[in-house]
Order: sequence, then structure tokens, then C-alpha cells
Amino acid sequence: MTDQIQNDQIFDVVAIGNALVDIIAEADDAFLVEQDIAKNAMNLVSAGRSGDLYDKIGPAVETSGGSAANTMTGIASLGGKAAFMGKVKEDQLGTIFRHDMHAQGVYFSTHPVPDNQHGPYAGISTGRCIILVTPDAARSMNTYLGISVEFEPQDINADILQRSQITYLEGYLFDRPAAKRAFYQATDIVKQAKKTMALTLSDLFCVERHRAEFHDLVQNHIDILFANEAEILALYQTNDFNSAIAEVRKHTGIAVVTRGEKGAVITNSDAVHEVPAAPVDKVIDTTGAGDLYAAGFLYGITHGKSLPEAGRIGAIAAAEVISHYGPRPLVKLSDLI
Amino acid sequence: MTDQIQNDQIFDVVAIGNALVDIIAEADDAFLVEQDIAKNAMNLVSAGRSGDLYDKIGPAVETSGGSAANTMTGIASLGGKAAFMGKVKEDQLGTIFRHDMHAQGVYFSTHPVPDNQHGPYAGISTGRCIILVTPDAARSMNTYLGISVEFEPQDINADILQRSQITYLEGYLFDRPAAKRAFYQATDIVKQAKKTMALTLSDLFCVERHRAEFHDLVQNHIDILFANEAEILALYQTNDFNSAIAEVRKHTGIAVVTRGEKGAVITNSDAVHEVPAAPVDKVIDTTGAGDLYAAGFLYGITHGKSLPEAGRIGAIAAAEVISHYGPRPLVKLSDLI
Repeated sequence: MTDQIQNDQIFDVVAIGNALVDIIAEADDAFLVEQDIAKNAMNLVSAGRSGDLYDKIGPAVETSGGSAANTMTGIASLGGKAAFMGKVKEDQLGTIFRHDMHAQGVYFSTHPVPDNQHGPYAGISTGRCIILVTPDAARSMNTYLGISVEFEPQDINADILQRSQITYLEGYLFDRPAAKRAFYQATDIVKQAKKTMALTLSDLFCVERHRAEFHDLVQNHIDILFANEAEILALYQTNDFNSAIAEVRKHTGIAVVTRGEKGAVITNSDAVHEVPAAPVDKVIDTTGAGDLYAAGFLYGITHGKSLPEAGRIGAIAAAEVISHYGPRPLVKLSDLI
Repeated sequence: MTDQIQNDQIFDVVAIGNALVDIIAEADDAFLVEQDIAKNAMNLVSAGRSGDLYDKIGPAVETSGGSAANTMTGIASLGGKAAFMGKVKEDQLGTIFRHDMHAQGVYFSTHPVPDNQHGPYAGISTGRCIILVTPDAARSMNTYLGISVEFEPQDINADILQRSQITYLEGYLFDRPAAKRAFYQATDIVKQAKKTMALTLSDLFCVERHRAEFHDLVQNHIDILFANEAEILALYQTNDFNSAIAEVRKHTGIAVVTRGEKGAVITNSDAVHEVPAAPVDKVIDTTGAGDLYAAGFLYGITHGKSLPEAGRIGAIAAAEVISHYGPRPLVKLSDLI
């Protein structure tokens, strides 16, 4: 796939998110406690902390990651047309990230930052996420955002947003001011083009950090909201799942709330659908479960499927990715549906 | 583990080999034909060819590799004491390689080459091997040696060789003159220290490239020889396995010849042992099979096991590594034996 866009090219979904390479290693719960790592969450870490932690973990495997980027590769693997915007350095990890996007058929043309040894970006590398997988298949993430936080409004390609049915944004973007400005700029472009805006709340602690703004977003800018159970409860500061669902139905067109092995609840103004999880022989690593659920759902609704049908595709895509290590599908998802 | 050596530290095995990061992707046989890649072999490629090929392959996963390095991590995983010498750059891939050696408990102190943008090594990165795994679980390797070929006699740490029961060398070292000189220097040190010298023939084409020198090595310098069936047949230029075995018994103390699912033949001057392969539910990726067989065998004989017992440990270690993607064990091998 070339990065040259064709005149008549359109996309099902374009995403803006952090461009990260994952470093996956096994760990036990005692190590998480010892290292003060919040389990099942995304912990933001500095470059120094990332390096210290890397020295302490066991042998690792590297693979391209990043939540919204994973979702776009899932859509491509399903046969959909996906694009991605996010920032990498022109270093070895950045090369790996770009390769994997292109190899999966995702349109990705954000200019990488040159890897100079002097200048404002010297010493800032492509972002990486140390993912520790415990024996219960839970993943605990430690993200050094690196150059990905330098994503800013001028990196937004308005033409791509206008060519896309849906623009999908990571809540994680709210963790940095420039990325947040880019986020709002994308929102304006999508609204003017009368296209659809989707958001994932990303992470429990991400919701805690940005609750007020997320409320505003959900009520005023977002057509499709993705969250897991912990995130939707945190957004509405309740312990009652049903009341959280009742709240979110008032505020957004479609909400897709995943609940692990309990399946997902998908709502719009007309109905609340419960969609069961797809069976998995053995859950190995839950990294990417939510990302791939979103991929299946977005593929479904951009291909004329009903909400429950789209949810079923999401469940199948999520089941594939949790049956092995790594956050991206290992088989062609289009063969599974 | 620190790189500071202790006064009383000894090693079961030290290896000298190419320090490589593997880039693993799936491919079909048609792609190998189209790209003129010899199947089941190690193809040496230039930096340019490596980059071109990388652009053409599908999504990939990165993991530390290198034949003798894999073997050392296998010995460490079995609970043995292993050391490694090999050259990386101080770049991201080099950092990954060093991390994984240390994390596995392998003593690795070869100085990395600084990652300067000027000077003789500018533009030469840590070596990498693009491994294409076909649906039959065969692996076809495309190696850009990068900085690993700059390994030279001054990188040999004689003290470590003298502290090791066995020094294990890759035949691949013969592909570059400086590494070959280092190889012979290691041979001299080991001989003077009255320790044991082991060699793997590495690859069919490697044998073809260096047959005369390998004959000399096997007859005059090597105590334990590792080969697979294709390599031993190529060394003696015969199609008859039994006559190749008869030849090798004349020339070396111990020969370990692996034959995939047919098991291994292990010989010394007294006997020829046939050791069956260990059962595997499903063979996924044969990368590292020979490396881990060698690990198990070397662990066995440095821990007082008989030749067939050491072969059985080799078979178990090989079975583990071919049951998943990647050339290094995913479980603690000491738990399996």
C-alpha cells in the first residue's frame, strides 16, 4: 500500500491515537505490587522509569501496539478500509510501527520526526508500552508516550477525516494539551463534514483524570461511545451498572460497553442489546480485547450491520486477540466472520 | 544480573555467535519463490535487501534471536550457567538484545558499539534476521548481520573462556574474516585451558561455503559437533546418512545429529545412540529447534548426564520451542525436565 492518497479513496474509519510499540513480558502479581503498578490499568511513566522497569522485567517480545492503532489493524484485518494518524520517530521502533500499519493495509501517513542527535526532539524516541501479563491473563501497562505526545493540530489531515465515515479517537489523547487541541480540531472537521464521531474512554484512570471534559464530550460531540464496565462506572461515579447505562443512553447516540466474559451491552435511544462474549478455549493475554471489540463493531456498522450483529463481530475479534500474546490479530479476521 | 564478573564465577557453557534480533512474520511458499528465498535455510542479505524485504512482508513480531544466543538462553532456562559474546550497536534493537540476555540470566558483557551518526560504524545497526514462517512451520531466514560482523579477536574475553567447561561456536562465524580470526583465537585459548570445544555447523549453505575449513575444524579442534541431517550430509558430500555418521565418528569425540521428528543420533567412539524426538501437540514454528536441542544437550553433559539422557533433555527443550512462535523458550525449561 502506498501513502499517496487516491482521488476517490474513502475510509470506513480513521483513528487518531498514540503510536506505540509494545514490549510484552510475563510477570507475577507480587512484581506488580513491588513495582507499584496498577493492575489491569494503563500507568503513564517517564522515560527514566520506563528504562528502570525494562531492566527489571523478564525476556520480552516486541510488537506494534497503541489502542486506536490496534483497532484500525483489526478493521483492516476484517476487510474494512482504515486510516490512522499518530506520531513516531524515525528510529527503529518507529520503523517497526510504520511497517506493521502498512503491512496490515492501514493508511498511515503522519510524518515521522527525524531522528537527529540535536534539536528539540533529541533523546525523545518512539513511544513504548511495557505490558506485563500475569498468569490470570490480565495486562498491566506502563506507557512511556515518547514522541507520540508531540501529535498536534497541524498533524491532523482534514482531507482524510472528510473521506471517512467515522473518526475514532482515544481518550488517552486528553493526557497531553497539544493532542487534546488536535482532538477538538478533529471534532470540528467531522461535525462540518456531517460525519460520525466515536470515542473510547480508554482506561479507568484516564476517565478519573478527565471526567468533566469527558462528560462534555459525550454530551456534545460524540455519536458512538466505547467503554468497559469500569470506565462507564467511573464516568458516572456509580457502582450500579444499570444506572450508568441509563445515564449514557441520555447523552450519546450509541454506547458500546464491554464486560469481559459477561459480553457487551450496546444501547441507542431505541433499545438496549445484550450481546454475549464469543467462546475462547484459553484466555492467554487480554491486551487488545477492547481495541478489537471496537474494531469488529465499527466494521459492522460501516457495513450495514445492526447493532447486535456489529457487536457479534466485535466479540469474535476480541476472542481471537485474547487467545494469544499481543494486541493484534494473528489470523485474517475476515476468515472468522 | 550484573555484568561485573565475580572471582569465583564459573560457567557451564560460553558461546560466541551473531547477536541478532528476529523479525518474525508469516508467509506462504509462493512468496518465498517470488522473493528467491531458500526455504528452511539462512540467507545472508545486505542492508538494502533486508529493508526491501521488510517492506514486502506482513505484520511482524520482534524478539531477540541469534543461533548460539538462543542456545545460551536455553541453558539458562534449564538452570545452567551460560555466557555469551557477540556484538550489538547501542541502538534500540541492541538494547532489546542485551535486555533479553540479561533478563534470561545469561552473562553478556561484550561492549556495544556507540550509535554515532558519524564515524566508521555510522549507518550500521544491530543485526536482524527476517524469519518467514510458512504454514508447514518451516522457517526461512534472511539475515542482515549488521554490526555483529564487527566481532573481532579483541572482543574475545579469554577469562570467560577459561572459566567455562565448554566453549560453543557458531559455524556462521566463518562468514566473516574478523569473526573467523576470533573463532581460531578462542580455539587456542580453550585448548590451552584444557577445556572442551563445541561447534554447530549452523546451516546447509554455511557448510557449502566453508566445507574444507569445517573438515579441518572437526578433525583437529572440535570435541563436540552439532549438526542436522542436511548439514552432516553436506559436510561429507553423501546422500547416505549412515556413512555420514560413520565418517563423523572417526573425526570428533561426540557428534549430535538432529533429524527433526525422527529424533537424533548421538555418537562417540564407543557407541551410536538413537534418541527419539519428544512429542509435540502442534508444530507452529521450527525456528530455534536445533539451538534448543543443543541447549538441552549441553546442559545435560555439563551436569553429569549420559549421552542419551542429555539427548532427551535436548529433545524436550526443542519440543517446547517449536510449539510456539519465536526461537526462545516461553516457559522455564527446568520445569519440564
